[in-house]
Amino acid sequence: MLKIFSTQLAGIFQNIEKSSEEAVEDAARLLAQSLVSDGTVYFHGTDEMMAVAYEGVTGPNAIPSSHFYDEKTALTAMDTVIVSARFAACEKSAAIAGAAREAGTRTIFIGAAEKGTDLDSLPYDVVLDTKAVRGLIPQDDGTRTALPSAICGLYVYQALHITVSEYLEEI
Amino acid sequence: MLKIFSTQLAGIFQNIEKSSEEAVEDAARLLAQSLVSDGTVYFHGTDEMMAVAYEGVTGPNAIPSSHFYDEKTALTAMDTVIVSARFAACEKSAAIAGAAREAGTRTIFIGAAEKGTDLDSLPYDVVLDTKAVRGLIPQDDGTRTALPSAICGLYVYQALHITVSEYLEEI
Repeated sequence: MLKIFSTQLAGIFQNIEKSSEEAVEDAARLLAQSLVSDGTVYFHGTDEMMAVAYEGVTGPNAIPSSHFYDEKTALTAMDTVIVSARFAACEKSAAIAGAAREAGTRTIFIGAAEKGTDLDSLPYDVVLDTKAVRGLIPQDDGTRTALPSAICGLYVYQALHITVSEYLEEI
Repeated sequence: MLKIFSTQLAGIFQNIEKSSEEAVEDAARLLAQSLVSDGTVYFHGTDEMMAVAYEGVTGPNAIPSSHFYDEKTALTAMDTVIVSARFAACEKSAAIAGAAREAGTRTIFIGAAEKGTDLDSLPYDVVLDTKAVRGLIPQDDGTRTALPSAICGLYVYQALHITVSEYLEEI
């Protein structure tokens, strides 16, 4: 079972690598702009996607000048908010990003963009698609288990971290 | 850079798969025992390893009857505590697990067992080694970046979740 999970997961990672280069660069540019302007990068995650927030704020690959977002956070146009949720249709994430936009803050979403989701209608400057739309292990009853939402969220985050680190070195 | 990260990460996943089967089965047995005895599975994570706790309690692959651990939690001998930290030498994790043991609670650790760490001296019934001991991307100055602690923690967690689900189906 773990073998199936690993093989399928490697496929998703490759898929992210191939298709998200441009979005990762756009997101890294926003982060770098915040950081060189002494802005703050705020993270919010819903449920298991808090993994991305903890990695971004407290991990060995944290973004400098990053904090957890909460409702009392006073955002500015120098800041960037990264919200993360299992699926792009998450209403809580959209509410946070919508409020951030009113303050002129840039917004990045990390999560799966399911087919049929109208990304243009959502209040995100950049969407980093985790491609984790369904469980990786088929079960006897026809359903699928082992949705890799958080692990793919961390993979996308890593891509972003590598790219923003390169940008900051160049400055 | 992301390519190097992915390739190295796949190597660690394979390494975990090969070497941790027995420990994963031991840990899954402890969890299954807790669950069939109406015990609770508590999660605690330090820094980015909160990823494992959020996945275990709130994720699509959550453990049934699981909760976040805090200092006020009244543990029993029916419960199991899963603590997670970047490295096995984490003192905070050991303190939580030590207190849990006094209540007769079983303890599982998820994190990297660095060379030289005396695992037998630590208060864990089972150690699930994430193998994430160093950064995956070499840098110009000779150091390494992109330590995959949380992503490997989630991979190990997934192995545990798959195995405990199988056990619970058999009961």
